Amino acid sequence: MTTEKREVHAKKGLEIECKGWEQEAVLRMLYNNLDPEVAEKPEELVVYGGIGKAARNWEAFDSIVSTLQRLENNETMLIQSGKPVAVFKTHEAAPRVLLSNSVLVPKWANWEHFHELDQQGLMMYGQMTAGSWIYIGTQGILQGTYETFASLAEKHFDKSLQGTITLTAGLGGMGGAQPLAVTMNGGVVIAVEVDPSRIEKRLQTKYLDKMTTSIDEALAWAVEAKQQGEALSIGLLGNAAEVHEDILSRNVNIDIVTDQTSAHDPLNGYIPVGYSLNESNQLRNQDPSTYVTLSSSSMARHVTAMLQFQKNGAIVFDYGNNIRQVAKDEGIEQAFDFPGFVPAYIRPLFCEGKGPFRWAALSGDPEDIYQTDRLIKELFPKNEPLIRWIDMAQKKVSFQGLPSRICWLGYGERVKMGLAINELVKNGELKAPIVIGRDHLDCGSVASPNRETESMKDGSDAVGDWAVLNALINTAAGGSWISFHHGGGVGMGYSLHAGMVAVADGTDLAKERLQRVLTTDPGMGIARHADAGYDKAKEIAKQKNIDIPMLD
Amino acid sequence: MTTEKREVHAKKGLEIECKGWEQEAVLRMLYNNLDPEVAEKPEELVVYGGIGKAARNWEAFDSIVSTLQRLENNETMLIQSGKPVAVFKTHEAAPRVLLSNSVLVPKWANWEHFHELDQQGLMMYGQMTAGSWIYIGTQGILQGTYETFASLAEKHFDKSLQGTITLTAGLGGMGGAQPLAVTMNGGVVIAVEVDPSRIEKRLQTKYLDKMTTSIDEALAWAVEAKQQGEALSIGLLGNAAEVHEDILSRNVNIDIVTDQTSAHDPLNGYIPVGYSLNESNQLRNQDPSTYVTLSSSSMARHVTAMLQFQKNGAIVFDYGNNIRQVAKDEGIEQAFDFPGFVPAYIRPLFCEGKGPFRWAALSGDPEDIYQTDRLIKELFPKNEPLIRWIDMAQKKVSFQGLPSRICWLGYGERVKMGLAINELVKNGELKAPIVIGRDHLDCGSVASPNRETESMKDGSDAVGDWAVLNALINTAAGGSWISFHHGGGVGMGYSLHAGMVAVADGTDLAKERLQRVLTTDPGMGIARHADAGYDKAKEIAKQKNIDIPMLD
Ligand SMILES: NC(=O)c1ccc[n+]([C@@H]2O[C@H](COP(=O)([O-])OP(=O)(O)OC[C@H]3O[C@@H](n4cnc5c(N)ncnc54)[C@H](O)[C@@H]3O)[C@@H](O)[C@H]2O)c1
Ligand SMILES: NC(=O)c1ccc[n+]([C@@H]2O[C@H](COP(=O)([O-])OP(=O)(O)OC[C@H]3O[C@@H](n4cnc5c(N)ncnc54)[C@H](O)[C@@H]3O)[C@@H](O)[C@H]2O)c1
Repeated sequence: MTTEKREVHAKKGLEIECKGWEQEAVLRMLYNNLDPEVAEKPEELVVYGGIGKAARNWEAFDSIVSTLQRLENNETMLIQSGKPVAVFKTHEAAPRVLLSNSVLVPKWANWEHFHELDQQGLMMYGQMTAGSWIYIGTQGILQGTYETFASLAEKHFDKSLQGTITLTAGLGGMGGAQPLAVTMNGGVVIAVEVDPSRIEKRLQTKYLDKMTTSIDEALAWAVEAKQQGEALSIGLLGNAAEVHEDILSRNVNIDIVTDQTSAHDPLNGYIPVGYSLNESNQLRNQDPSTYVTLSSSSMARHVTAMLQFQKNGAIVFDYGNNIRQVAKDEGIEQAFDFPGFVPAYIRPLFCEGKGPFRWAALSGDPEDIYQTDRLIKELFPKNEPLIRWIDMAQKKVSFQGLPSRICWLGYGERVKMGLAINELVKNGELKAPIVIGRDHLDCGSVASPNRETESMKDGSDAVGDWAVLNALINTAAGGSWISFHHGGGVGMGYSLHAGMVAVADGTDLAKERLQRVLTTDPGMGIARHADAGYDKAKEIAKQKNIDIPMLD
Repeated sequence: MTTEKREVHAKKGLEIECKGWEQEAVLRMLYNNLDPEVAEKPEELVVYGGIGKAARNWEAFDSIVSTLQRLENNETMLIQSGKPVAVFKTHEAAPRVLLSNSVLVPKWANWEHFHELDQQGLMMYGQMTAGSWIYIGTQGILQGTYETFASLAEKHFDKSLQGTITLTAGLGGMGGAQPLAVTMNGGVVIAVEVDPSRIEKRLQTKYLDKMTTSIDEALAWAVEAKQQGEALSIGLLGNAAEVHEDILSRNVNIDIVTDQTSAHDPLNGYIPVGYSLNESNQLRNQDPSTYVTLSSSSMARHVTAMLQFQKNGAIVFDYGNNIRQVAKDEGIEQAFDFPGFVPAYIRPLFCEGKGPFRWAALSGDPEDIYQTDRLIKELFPKNEPLIRWIDMAQKKVSFQGLPSRICWLGYGERVKMGLAINELVKNGELKAPIVIGRDHLDCGSVASPNRETESMKDGSDAVGDWAVLNALINTAAGGSWISFHHGGGVGMGYSLHAGMVAVADGTDLAKERLQRVLTTDPGMGIARHADAGYDKAKEIAKQKNIDIPMLD
């Protein structure tokens, strides 16, 4: 294996090096995933999410590239965990690439065995959009967080967070999207963060409006903005376990409480009460077991405060950081009295086949994305949170690599948008084809009992058949590249999920394929949730004439 | 759920009830799987292999049937563990049915969780050909066993077992195929079996020639036949652990030793030395732990004897019943000195893309199969073991349900046979279309570290990507029904594997689809083994121009 450090950049423009735009699309999205603007450690082929990679090693990368350059319009390349292993003759409506990432026979499906194979050069961790070549940078997490708060607003507050105060903690890699996601929904947010440098960074990138070290000041600002109906985000320096107790004692009305400290990792992700950053670093090195004891008991206080906010009438939810489990293990019996974010806010969307929909402009020209932004507002003029998201994203999100956009669309909407994009390409209104895909926080392609399929109504959380069927039907329907993965998001052993990308190149064949695959993909979400017994999904299935043989 | 006991029979004849022969083929194979001639407990929908089922329950069965009857030529039905969950529009060259059987997120992939879901009606164990609707009765196990002994003969004895004595034990459900498989290869076999009723049954069905209770008589017959170069099978009543020791003490030359007692289950599958059947039943009920202690130590003696035969010059191998592991746990350090049957005899075939190929006549007319028997002898006149198998099968195998045939064919051969069958259908030389599929003791579609992928050269035994890619590429290539399974053969947690069936209905589209899918399917086997570093596979890949981008 080469240890050579390489740098590659997103390819743009109207010249293609492959035998068709479909293969070129694959090539450009692979390069894009590894563009230094997009990827976290591109020199190691790591895109995001720990060690989520785009190719097994640089030799494999080169071979994928040269294979794509020679791949015919009726051939299909197979990728086994980041390495090209075969090319077969298929047909024009079949996918050009099929991928399987880090799938292990269950008994061996753990990090230990994975690392063994990885070190021998036999495997790669594909995460979700890293190994399926449709990562688009931080816009994804911002939009997901926005969508969660929008759904919460819809459920509890008449579609906007205007006039509400959200209290949260953690302004790290993902948590840093919270303040902007709340203000985009019109609300006020106080985000408690123990590390001043994290607060600074969010101020610089304009994800956060103001900061203070005073609880009183933060509360005063928040109450003022709430009364004025203004959106405002406030970074408050402090330890959440302590600050939350102080806020409780001050009797200010808090409407929403959640948390994105890295509670899932008690040794490295959570700072115990009473320790500065430096002190906690020292303690972590010198006495890790005391560290974990202290941080766990701080988390118990943290969750106890969250439960008290809930008793006081606030909407409280867990944002997938496992803090409830730690508190429960510390003896807080009611820790699971507040729900996880998927069952609370995302599942109702899944029941409508609503889920992530992202696209990238292969031309590399931002104007192509602005055109599609106009298109989406034209097609869905009554979808307020969507319009608000597009307007805000234009202002706040800077493109990384190939210009791209993400939003959430339901069954019927995805195919409508996809076909309209294909028309724009056909008519020459866009400079080059558009790639359409999604991530895996999705309705019908994921089995992940600690997140996407937590607490399914019928107890089918761990049933993986749905993810397999999603990959198979999208392959049959004619996606351009289809992937199947193990372990994305929650790690080895904990998830099975499938990816789908389709290319809108303006041809009639693309039209047919988009028509089919943008129907099957969200359709699987409705079928999966109808089967699990969700009334909403059954209703939508009937309403949209989705063919589910045993639907009662 | 209905508890009603139902009986269904294979549908035959030239009238169809579906909108095309492809859908009709699915329907007929589903019925065939559950024909009382074919299935073990058809009233419970159990086809074979413990609880391997064809549909989740009778309601699901009925819904699958009625959905098939209305399914259009450009639609695809999805089956989640035996239940139809959706129908989507695809296209004519796409599969008509896609199935996923008993797939669980790895951390939950155990029998306990499976049974929970099964009891709630949320899952079904699909085994291999049960849940993928291509089981054809006992011909399959006979042929697999025949092929193993043929490969052994090829490797060690100049292509025939003539003039050799094989010693084995166990004449149960699968082990009962051993005597006929050995005599079909021209050899002599002594099969030790503790249960006289099992021996009787094999005599009745002509799978076994003679029986005796005397070791001396058995040896005398065997030596006599060996000297005459005659094929002969002898059932010897006794306990293998004891009998093997006795035979060793008699100094008779044994050429081959294996075993098919149910050693994988020490409580129910193996009888300890010194216990009659009745006594062992009593002990099992009264004191199971003593039973396991005694049967395990008998197995240690059994394996010790096998090792001694090996030292004396015999070819010794494990037939996938885990007896080596039990002996090792009992302190027999050298237990793994003899190999498993896959690495020893099957893997070299896998490297050539050789694997199972079975077909069934939808007309129900045996003459259609005899026609294809003639065809195969015409196409492969030089393949002696194949011709021998076909001749013997015609004599010894009685059809169960729809007439069918199975044999092993390599890369290139499968597509040749498939297209030739399609021609016969086209020209009206066969009365109705033929269904072509395979089981999962296969080269490129299985990840099963205790069997099909035991001791892979590069240590990639547990890599499941290959099974996923097989299902995906066969879907893209246009199989008629494609399935993905977890836990077949070796149980929950231990395997991932994919099935493929294609219909030869004589049309041009079928020709194209067969051309592709009968190339991709064995092609995956060669790619998988070339990637794992087998020289033979690399050679064949080059020779056959299989497109493997990083082939060195
Ligand atoms: N389920 C999902 O889809 C989802 C989405 C986003 C985030 N998450 C979870 O949220 C968590 C945060 O993710 P991240 O990428 O932002 O992590 P990160 O490690 O980058 O950031 C965590 C932040 O919390 C701060 N912090 C730690 N202890 C604190 C305390 N006691 N008080 C105040 N601040 C404290 C740290 O200084 C750090 O800035 C993770 O557990 C992640 O898994 C889940
Ligand atoms: N890997 C493969 O593809 C493959 C193929 C065939 C069989 N097998 C294995 O072979 C074994 C047998 O399968 P089966 O379906 O025939 O099982 P089975 O339970 O139907 O038959 C086992 C037979 O062994 C006999 N027996 C038990 N203890 C004995 C002893 N001490 N001496 C003599 N006879 C004894 C029993 O009376 C019984 O007839 C299983 O472990 C199975 O998994 C594996």
